[in-house]
Amino acid sequence: MDEAARREGQVTDQVLASFEEAPDARVREVMDALVRHAHAFVREVRLTEAEWEAGIDFLTRCGQITDERRQEFILLSDVLGLSMLTIAVNQPPVPSATEATVFGPFFVEDAPEVPLGGDIARGASGQPCWVEGTVRDVEGHPVGGARLDVWEADDDGRYDVQYTDDRSAARGHLFTDEDGRYSFWAITPTPYPIPHDGPVGDLLSATGRGPMRAAHLHFMVTATGFHRLVTHIFVRGDAHQGSDAVFGVKESLVVDFAEQPAGTPPPDGRQVAGPWTRARFDIVLVPD
Amino acid sequence: MDEAARREGQVTDQVLASFEEAPDARVREVMDALVRHAHAFVREVRLTEAEWEAGIDFLTRCGQITDERRQEFILLSDVLGLSMLTIAVNQPPVPSATEATVFGPFFVEDAPEVPLGGDIARGASGQPCWVEGTVRDVEGHPVGGARLDVWEADDDGRYDVQYTDDRSAARGHLFTDEDGRYSFWAITPTPYPIPHDGPVGDLLSATGRGPMRAAHLHFMVTATGFHRLVTHIFVRGDAHQGSDAVFGVKESLVVDFAEQPAGTPPPDGRQVAGPWTRARFDIVLVPD
Repeated sequence: MDEAARREGQVTDQVLASFEEAPDARVREVMDALVRHAHAFVREVRLTEAEWEAGIDFLTRCGQITDERRQEFILLSDVLGLSMLTIAVNQPPVPSATEATVFGPFFVEDAPEVPLGGDIARGASGQPCWVEGTVRDVEGHPVGGARLDVWEADDDGRYDVQYTDDRSAARGHLFTDEDGRYSFWAITPTPYPIPHDGPVGDLLSATGRGPMRAAHLHFMVTATGFHRLVTHIFVRGDAHQGSDAVFGVKESLVVDFAEQPAGTPPPDGRQVAGPWTRARFDIVLVPD
Repeated sequence: MDEAARREGQVTDQVLASFEEAPDARVREVMDALVRHAHAFVREVRLTEAEWEAGIDFLTRCGQITDERRQEFILLSDVLGLSMLTIAVNQPPVPSATEATVFGPFFVEDAPEVPLGGDIARGASGQPCWVEGTVRDVEGHPVGGARLDVWEADDDGRYDVQYTDDRSAARGHLFTDEDGRYSFWAITPTPYPIPHDGPVGDLLSATGRGPMRAAHLHFMVTATGFHRLVTHIFVRGDAHQGSDAVFGVKESLVVDFAEQPAGTPPPDGRQVAGPWTRARFDIVLVPD
């Protein structure tokens, strides 16, 4: 072993030893692996001091732009695929279950409840869209009373929390009926860029990547006795699915948003001016 | 390969592919390695979603506490040994050169100049300490006009920037004479805790580690034609050298701070009330 390798190995050994007395075995395991992999990165790329400084500056800028409405560290995890990988690692090994995807930074606790067939848009701009489906267990039994939280961007590509006027729109929650059925009005999802006026946007630019997310509608489904499902549905035919900035697209989550010409009567008899779409998404939950 | 490994590998492959078009080869190399090592960490520890959330929360709290006077991301890099490892990776392979150590978060640009033999303490509390030495190249030739930036904590364990009253103390810069000699008055370094009232302190507590740094005086030495040297000197006999929170101690940097009883005449004839110490540190720079 040459002198440089010996000196570098000594640093890593000292750091690993410092975590050996951590009282919690899992904390010890995670810190040990974190140190080994982080040190292996620095050694492999022969990180320069200027690059180290750039890294500190990058994280500092992520911290400066993060507040109650902006979460740059989640965006960073998303664009590095760490969010999707964590989801993959935790996905129950049940092929028939609905696949999960990224949570994203735009969920809001306690969005208003809407009744079955209600409208979550509440003023958000966009083409009306009827969404319906069922929630079932892996044996096909309906899951009544399952809670669906649903949220999406408007057709300007922005979530309500990205506006400065405290609006609440294009989000809500509802519960399945005793047959596991649900339905609601929303707006047809459109592609939009993740917030890219901060350090994560700079990273995307510097690496020749785009900020666009494939058009999607978020779902979080919770029911007693079942593993919580966080997922999206994607719009079949959207050109951004191959280059989704956060690697969230899975083929099983791409569904038809069938175009309905102006005048087509909606399933609930609502008056809709102009064309609308309808989508169906049947969900299968895994037991806890 | 089982289904889980296939699904996880697919995520990593997609992310690696997304960086393949980065225009700068070095950026591509660094991002490729960062993704591989970060993904390997998540897969190895089977990171749970709750742990991922704790990680996001940890970074968010680091960002919240960081400002012009506090740099939690540097502290984090320091306590994970990443700062020392980066220094080791960049250390010129010249055994006779003075060893480098961590920069730390407390350097301030443009600290006042003091003449040779001047006092950097400027009101900081602590026992007076006379520091002297030479700056030479690897062939033993004196380096005249080398700039030394020196800084340290007071004997309450705090740097000037950790007070809220805008004081400037216990820091300064000076230049070697034509024979490469330097000397200044400072205060005898004492051990102190790194700031541990934030997330990095929580990490140390959770892992059974202490926040103490071995007593030290910072040096940054710059001279035209030479590699910049960032280092410390440590006080021989200090009990914290085996558990320095940032892994900064190197045997070659431990020097005698010889106790001088009250009344011992200082080398420059200054009046010193009470005991003082003196230390010698001869520095060897590596050409650029």
